[in-house]
Amino acid sequence: MRAVDLIAKKRDGATLSTAEIEWLVQGYVAGDIPDYQMSAWAMAVLWRGMDDRETADLTLAIARSGDMLDLHDIAPLTVDKHSTGGVGDKTTLVLAPLAAAAGMPVAKMSGRGLGFSGGTIDKLESIPHFRTELSTAEFRRAVAEIGLVVAAQSGDLAPADKKLYALRDVTATVESIPLIAASVMSKKLAAGADCIVLDVKYGSGAFMATLADARKLAQAMVAIGTHAGRRVAAVLSSMQQPLGFAIGNALEVREAVATLRGNGPADLVELCLALGAQLALLAGRAAGEEEARALIRDTLDNGAGWAKFCAMVQNQGSDPTAIATPEYLPSAPVQVDLPAPRAGYVQAITGQALGIAVNELGGGRQRTGEPIDPAVGLVLKAKVADQVYLGQPLLTIHAAEAAAAERVAASLLAAYTIGDAPAAPVALIEEIVS
Amino acid sequence: MRAVDLIAKKRDGATLSTAEIEWLVQGYVAGDIPDYQMSAWAMAVLWRGMDDRETADLTLAIARSGDMLDLHDIAPLTVDKHSTGGVGDKTTLVLAPLAAAAGMPVAKMSGRGLGFSGGTIDKLESIPHFRTELSTAEFRRAVAEIGLVVAAQSGDLAPADKKLYALRDVTATVESIPLIAASVMSKKLAAGADCIVLDVKYGSGAFMATLADARKLAQAMVAIGTHAGRRVAAVLSSMQQPLGFAIGNALEVREAVATLRGNGPADLVELCLALGAQLALLAGRAAGEEEARALIRDTLDNGAGWAKFCAMVQNQGSDPTAIATPEYLPSAPVQVDLPAPRAGYVQAITGQALGIAVNELGGGRQRTGEPIDPAVGLVLKAKVADQVYLGQPLLTIHAAEAAAAERVAASLLAAYTIGDAPAAPVALIEEIVS
Repeated sequence: MRAVDLIAKKRDGATLSTAEIEWLVQGYVAGDIPDYQMSAWAMAVLWRGMDDRETADLTLAIARSGDMLDLHDIAPLTVDKHSTGGVGDKTTLVLAPLAAAAGMPVAKMSGRGLGFSGGTIDKLESIPHFRTELSTAEFRRAVAEIGLVVAAQSGDLAPADKKLYALRDVTATVESIPLIAASVMSKKLAAGADCIVLDVKYGSGAFMATLADARKLAQAMVAIGTHAGRRVAAVLSSMQQPLGFAIGNALEVREAVATLRGNGPADLVELCLALGAQLALLAGRAAGEEEARALIRDTLDNGAGWAKFCAMVQNQGSDPTAIATPEYLPSAPVQVDLPAPRAGYVQAITGQALGIAVNELGGGRQRTGEPIDPAVGLVLKAKVADQVYLGQPLLTIHAAEAAAAERVAASLLAAYTIGDAPAAPVALIEEIVS
Repeated sequence: MRAVDLIAKKRDGATLSTAEIEWLVQGYVAGDIPDYQMSAWAMAVLWRGMDDRETADLTLAIARSGDMLDLHDIAPLTVDKHSTGGVGDKTTLVLAPLAAAAGMPVAKMSGRGLGFSGGTIDKLESIPHFRTELSTAEFRRAVAEIGLVVAAQSGDLAPADKKLYALRDVTATVESIPLIAASVMSKKLAAGADCIVLDVKYGSGAFMATLADARKLAQAMVAIGTHAGRRVAAVLSSMQQPLGFAIGNALEVREAVATLRGNGPADLVELCLALGAQLALLAGRAAGEEEARALIRDTLDNGAGWAKFCAMVQNQGSDPTAIATPEYLPSAPVQVDLPAPRAGYVQAITGQALGIAVNELGGGRQRTGEPIDPAVGLVLKAKVADQVYLGQPLLTIHAAEAAAAERVAASLLAAYTIGDAPAAPVALIEEIVS
């Protein structure tokens, strides 16, 4: 086989065989196929696309380039969740304990934040003493004993994805639905879960700008899962504005705790119930949507989800009795309200601008490995469709010092669009793809 | 500027500005833009195409990456010719002297053969003592004194083309009409001629398989020339079979000499007159096609073209009185006829197979720099539409030893398609693009 022939084949719109795709991925990871051939191939894929079988083959080849986790000896069925990303998205912190409490073991590896996106691991590490770096033995024991673990990625999961993603990033070959689907799903397949629910966001600021594209991506990922023998469903949700009110690591943990204790924002609760219900259906723990939703709702209402969260907190080194007290988590010394510059109705909030502001406050990082301040962030006081009066707080800035809060105020104001006419809020969940 | 943004722009179907294209080419030659970005960009160009302005900008940027020849101080108007390649194509050897004899100075840099394609420099070097490696001073003096020089490329013409072509070759990004046009024309623009005629071949075995594609390529190259202030025309000619009868370096020189002395094969004569007439029109030496054709025809008929060839032979170190005697050129010791395996009519001859056979006989090279045997080659005895009888010679193999001739016999037979029905010969020249 020659790489140039496989590039030409894709360039001319043909489909590559399973063996050809495996050869390409293995050769690339081994360094036998140079970057300049892989980038030309990736551009040809953007042009010509890949069918479901090719996409599944690519995903499996990428997944198999590193470790493949298998937890079947300790849990016959585990579940996992992935989101295409969103500012203020603390869904994992709520959904994972609810699913575990409903009898579906969650063995989740999560990432850290970069740029304007937060990361679940950073959020969990704002809890004093919470350990996210677990050994394989500790990870497996947590699954066996409490059915819930959320840890930083360990081992060598899908190294081909790291190399290919870095190349795509500098060659304008990111925006391909099959390549995006393969990148996400390769890591999920390698992480070993049997049932996977995907939260695919759409809207300005989301990775997929339109519902149609989000649907295509969701369908591609579901098809990959089916090809690979996993059960996968996707929830398409709008990213018109941040989820809930809190943005920032400790602030989001506080919001997740409040949600698990029955006092969560409606949109966050709704998304967690929708995603959890899909997991229950995939796992065969409910006969229909309504029963599935009731199962998850119950674990929220009866405190079983909260108890599971506390069990995880204890198991990973922190204090489950203290976590419910707000002062256990770090707080920012400065809290300043951002007043509305005019009266009217909130029409839109650009989450990306808020994420960048939190980053500038010290709550995120520009480069991997940089330290972050877990206490800083934002708490929204007005969301889309809310009426505001001149001077009424739009949000509260939690900062390390007053000057830092002042520096981000202008860009935060720019993130809010306030108009005269009442604005109808967009429905959070558009449809389910399974 | 960032390369990734320019790749994305082309990927999304937009046009790049002149400044953007210059930045890309300069950055690539300087090594600031890596191969993996350039190959992704090239694939995006295959996908989205380039308009005439972009193609002209790319061509000029590539031309200006090295030396730009300017002969206007010694010749106010020079002419040049390029062919997209063909087995047995000795057109330059005939056309250049005819054009020079018609008062149009020819300052031509040519290449060597590689693979199954021959090269004009190899052909000329089969003439004893003929010097193709000239200093710039010698090259310029030849233009000034006799108006005709054909030499190996000297200096650093279009280095960006060498680098980009090598990359395209291994990333399946060769087959783009704008990129092919830019590659050809960048070298022509750098070589400095004011009027350029292009012989664009089409048909199986030609670079362009269809007349439609050949037309597109011709139009793209003419447009580039116009943008760059040169006068360019193209002749679209079919490559149904080799041109003339001879294939092989000394054999082709013999055929060119015979042609210049009035005994040439009809197809070769026709192509040289058509190309020469276009040059005369471009150079303003004739008011119409008929007058232009007559001007070139006269230089052939009255021996002026032959005299100019002899003047070039003398000027570049060889013996103009001996060149007319067949024994002055090297001859192969073994000459074996290839008998027709059946009676019928010749339907097709695949030039590529003949070119590969000449290469195997030692008349060409697989790698740059390999020595070649100038004497070996083939002389066709039957061309398309000819009737043949069983055992009648299809061609004569000129080889260094009998075993070598035997080794290529089977593939030569396979190059001929002989059928029962009379075959109509395809018209050589299809149309003119100017």
